[in-house]
Amino acid sequence: MSILKTIQSPADLKRVLPSQLPELCEEIREQIIGTVSSVGGHLASNLGVVELTVALHYLLKTPADKIVWDTSNQAYTHKLLTGRREQFHTLRQYGGLSGFCKREESEYDSFNAGHAGTGVSAAFGLVEAREQLKQKNKVVCVVGDGAMTAGMTLEGLHHAGGLGKDFLVVLNDNQMSISKNVGAISAYLSRTISGEFYGKMREETGQLLRKIPHIGEDMQKLARRAEELAKGAILPGLLFEELGFQYYGPIDGHNFEHLLPTLENVLKMKGPVLLHVITKKGLGYEPAINNPVWFHACPPFVRETGAPAKKAARPSYTQFAMDSLVKLAREDQRIVAITAAMCEGTGLTGFEKEFPDRLYDVGIAEQHAVTFAAGLATQGLKPVVVMYSTFLQRAYDQVVHDVATQNLPVVFCIDRGGLVAEDGTTHHGAFDYAYLRHAPNMVVMAPKDENELQHMMKTCIQHDGPVSIRYPRGVSLGVSMDAVPAALPIGKGELMKDGSDVAIMAIGVSVWQAMQAAERLTKEGISTAVVNARFVKPIDQDLIVDVAKRVRYVVTVEEGCKMGGFGSAVLEALSDARITDVTTKMLGLPDWYIEQGPQDLLRERYGLTAEGIYQSVKELVGKAPVTKQDRFAVGASLDHLPHGDEQGS
Amino acid sequence: MSILKTIQSPADLKRVLPSQLPELCEEIREQIIGTVSSVGGHLASNLGVVELTVALHYLLKTPADKIVWDTSNQAYTHKLLTGRREQFHTLRQYGGLSGFCKREESEYDSFNAGHAGTGVSAAFGLVEAREQLKQKNKVVCVVGDGAMTAGMTLEGLHHAGGLGKDFLVVLNDNQMSISKNVGAISAYLSRTISGEFYGKMREETGQLLRKIPHIGEDMQKLARRAEELAKGAILPGLLFEELGFQYYGPIDGHNFEHLLPTLENVLKMKGPVLLHVITKKGLGYEPAINNPVWFHACPPFVRETGAPAKKAARPSYTQFAMDSLVKLAREDQRIVAITAAMCEGTGLTGFEKEFPDRLYDVGIAEQHAVTFAAGLATQGLKPVVVMYSTFLQRAYDQVVHDVATQNLPVVFCIDRGGLVAEDGTTHHGAFDYAYLRHAPNMVVMAPKDENELQHMMKTCIQHDGPVSIRYPRGVSLGVSMDAVPAALPIGKGELMKDGSDVAIMAIGVSVWQAMQAAERLTKEGISTAVVNARFVKPIDQDLIVDVAKRVRYVVTVEEGCKMGGFGSAVLEALSDARITDVTTKMLGLPDWYIEQGPQDLLRERYGLTAEGIYQSVKELVGKAPVTKQDRFAVGASLDHLPHGDEQGS
Repeated sequence: MSILKTIQSPADLKRVLPSQLPELCEEIREQIIGTVSSVGGHLASNLGVVELTVALHYLLKTPADKIVWDTSNQAYTHKLLTGRREQFHTLRQYGGLSGFCKREESEYDSFNAGHAGTGVSAAFGLVEAREQLKQKNKVVCVVGDGAMTAGMTLEGLHHAGGLGKDFLVVLNDNQMSISKNVGAISAYLSRTISGEFYGKMREETGQLLRKIPHIGEDMQKLARRAEELAKGAILPGLLFEELGFQYYGPIDGHNFEHLLPTLENVLKMKGPVLLHVITKKGLGYEPAINNPVWFHACPPFVRETGAPAKKAARPSYTQFAMDSLVKLAREDQRIVAITAAMCEGTGLTGFEKEFPDRLYDVGIAEQHAVTFAAGLATQGLKPVVVMYSTFLQRAYDQVVHDVATQNLPVVFCIDRGGLVAEDGTTHHGAFDYAYLRHAPNMVVMAPKDENELQHMMKTCIQHDGPVSIRYPRGVSLGVSMDAVPAALPIGKGELMKDGSDVAIMAIGVSVWQAMQAAERLTKEGISTAVVNARFVKPIDQDLIVDVAKRVRYVVTVEEGCKMGGFGSAVLEALSDARITDVTTKMLGLPDWYIEQGPQDLLRERYGLTAEGIYQSVKELVGKAPVTKQDRFAVGASLDHLPHGDEQGS
Repeated sequence: MSILKTIQSPADLKRVLPSQLPELCEEIREQIIGTVSSVGGHLASNLGVVELTVALHYLLKTPADKIVWDTSNQAYTHKLLTGRREQFHTLRQYGGLSGFCKREESEYDSFNAGHAGTGVSAAFGLVEAREQLKQKNKVVCVVGDGAMTAGMTLEGLHHAGGLGKDFLVVLNDNQMSISKNVGAISAYLSRTISGEFYGKMREETGQLLRKIPHIGEDMQKLARRAEELAKGAILPGLLFEELGFQYYGPIDGHNFEHLLPTLENVLKMKGPVLLHVITKKGLGYEPAINNPVWFHACPPFVRETGAPAKKAARPSYTQFAMDSLVKLAREDQRIVAITAAMCEGTGLTGFEKEFPDRLYDVGIAEQHAVTFAAGLATQGLKPVVVMYSTFLQRAYDQVVHDVATQNLPVVFCIDRGGLVAEDGTTHHGAFDYAYLRHAPNMVVMAPKDENELQHMMKTCIQHDGPVSIRYPRGVSLGVSMDAVPAALPIGKGELMKDGSDVAIMAIGVSVWQAMQAAERLTKEGISTAVVNARFVKPIDQDLIVDVAKRVRYVVTVEEGCKMGGFGSAVLEALSDARITDVTTKMLGLPDWYIEQGPQDLLRERYGLTAEGIYQSVKELVGKAPVTKQDRFAVGASLDHLPHGDEQGS
């Protein structure tokens, strides 16, 4: 008889005997490994927090009591315990459960997240709301050690520590965020938990908590400090104590005999408390323990071996971009690369291997990453910030206020531009064109395929000012590659195909889709031009106006939000040239947060496929839309357009 | 004979005898007080760092050695010592010296700033550039205690502390950033420097530094810790030690006998060092000591009394907005207000006075402010984030990823929208329409005058979703106020005046300017309509299209960047409705960083006055522009349009 199946809500969990909890955890792990092996997801972090999650729900009265999961990619156990077990197989699928917390999905999800470092701030909002509303519920924030390097987390701790309200922060320390951890806080935590010291402290903290729960806080602090100093050890937790938190731990996050009594005690305490819990990423699945980085967010895999379920048909854009960067870095000593804890995801491992001294992993600290790059650039270096589109949002002010204002030659390699599939709402790179193009001095470009990508990489390195290149998640198109990358003229687009009725102006991954649509339209008697804009900024006004003058209809296509994005820039260019006699239509992402789902499916849903573009043009020019049966055959030269979503995030 | 006048560069400074330095500092203070009293500026902070700046330039070999000033509003002494004394009277004037560091202004300015918290990251970029380029120069970052609460500063310290390169951070601790300091770090620093402990430590730190500069770092640390613990005191500096910095101090930042030998020693040290220096804001000018908040950034004042040189003609938009908020808060217990260290600047002091428990000052921590507000909103409160437009940039991701995604009813009162005058480049609120309007669910509005402002404040509070209202710096128009604020329908604009040739579609402060232009144009036979858009988002497509159908020309006007802003939204609306037969023109801020200068002058320069709008329309419709003599007379009902820049920033 499965224990997990008896649990429809945390109330059911409370009926499980403490001695049965390890068995329950085994079932949970089994469920998580099974599901993630078939649908992909954040495996390693979720396997690490099974006991911690069970212990929290065992002791708290959720949903009255609140748990805020920082980043919330570790909430699978939480989902299984809060009524979502039966839908769990739909995880990260189109229309299914989110891989993250969603308030719209469950009353047990207190706050939505996706980006790291928001948890403490949000949870402290719940704390102060409780105080304002004179309620009594407990608020717990679970935050990983990786997110401790995010400035926002420290801002939140600082505010909460200063105000002194009851608030439990659980530091889930697996000594790893996404990449390996870096920097002083990591070193600090490592010292804290290293060697025999960890064992001793764990034991003594427990004893201490049991012995002196009733004496004043100051006495407790003093007692601990004295004890620690007597041992001549590095004092653990002082960082947090200095921020106004009482620090307890570290304790073993997989042992209920430590977890339950300690949690019970700290939940009773007054004021801000930080409990330091040590967990192991991937626990319960050997391949994930051995390769927690790959299993951080993995595609479907073969349960028995941990090998990917299918191999990508072609290399990813990421790989082409970073291979290109490595080649350029061989010739140009000025190039240094910067990542915010995403060395693997952004494909920088090759760069790191070849140029270990020229790679900076700053931790989850996007703001610092960008301004640090600006500082490097003032001295003649050529810093390349490699970051996912969605995470660069965190550094918007640093782009505008530090890099672009000073016209500094910082290169932004923006990975995961456009639709990212299963990570959904918080991770789509929908806004980058719109939030970058109004920054003065900034160059914003996106390649139509991997060959253009290599030329644009070269263009970035040569350009003496802030410049960005945005490329998508997923496999490349399989086009033939020029032998030598050549810099493109800044601000010049490419007329892919001329035409006299309609002009489709497209950028990035949408260009070849536009080409297919245009060929079909032209065959049907609607003479259709295609402009590969290449640059969202500076936009090629000459080309756009020149082509627009020849046609009656202009359609813009981009895999980004329509509002203020590429299409908007085209309209501005036409307005500026006082072009009045063309009807325009913008295709792109609509004004809502895009759901999770395979890239192809979402592209189809939002009309960004060749078929969708074709239909939009037909509708625009006033002819009846063709039937489904009439879908065009893919031309021989274009049969490499990406179909699958063949790569992990 | 003035010593200051003999100093053309830091090389000259080195010829001054140490015993003459206090006299030099007096001259510098005299110069600063004199200039700021006549042109306005950041007085208090600059008076606090005179000795520290002199000492740094006395010991360093700038510009080979680098000083990075965080925020850089405290760099007046630095400017006076680095060849800019003779231009100092042009400070913050149009075409004059910037009130902040500018690399384009001097080779002694290592990094541009304006927003707090970027200094450590930028300076550490200089440190790592030095290492990459195998150079030997020193890098010093001077950062205020206020900026210590910025997450970015902590991200930078964390990275620098982890890598361990030679790097001096001087913590300029005046126990105050802009408002009073808040939170744990402030409390921490206060403990550190409180009472007799400060005096003792200062002395002993000095002795220690002199005695043991050659023994290993660990020994030094241990020795200090042992000594401190022996005294049973709170351990100072451990926060920084935990972040990987050697901590020294606190020392008296106005005493050269402490400053010079200590700085000399710490500049010789290996690895990251933090020197904690205590300074007094406003030192040397009694009124500034007594009211450092007012003198943080003050308008011209009467030297003898410290009173403002002129009184504002009418209350500011800020005041109307916050008076309105206080009234609404009396009726609605859900309203809580949040500021990031700008209680006075944003006009929240009245709110704080009346509702001390409902005002959160989170310190310079805009990211946390916004996500904290999101947390509050999930529980049914109505958080109002009051922030300058330029500083909200720091929280772009929190708006997009935390507030708007969850459609949470957080109100953003965006002060200093548009041109801000003397603070210049880094402070103009140029981008808010463009960076906010693509966030799904977000409502973006701006009032044409203070009466509409009160109605919009009411609208914000009533709206059940993320909503922003943007208003300008400076005095209001003096229009008559309705007795009771009434919520406006979301997404509905206002047809101010109909017309059949031209439609001017304007938002915010530009609306009444557009009205004046339209009346003049109409008189001259060009029938001109005016739309007060009220909402940048959701934009009133029905009204815009309806009016556009009647005219041949549509002109948009906004005090914000044209790219992706309000005008762009109008073009999108017209495109969406397939309107083709109108010629459009966008007026707004161009694609560069706007210089400093009086609001009126900048508005004129960028064609955003009634005259500028009039001229643009004339040019658009193809008639010869009128001569300067032909400037229109201001109508009787409109004689309250703002002319002066009568309020401090």
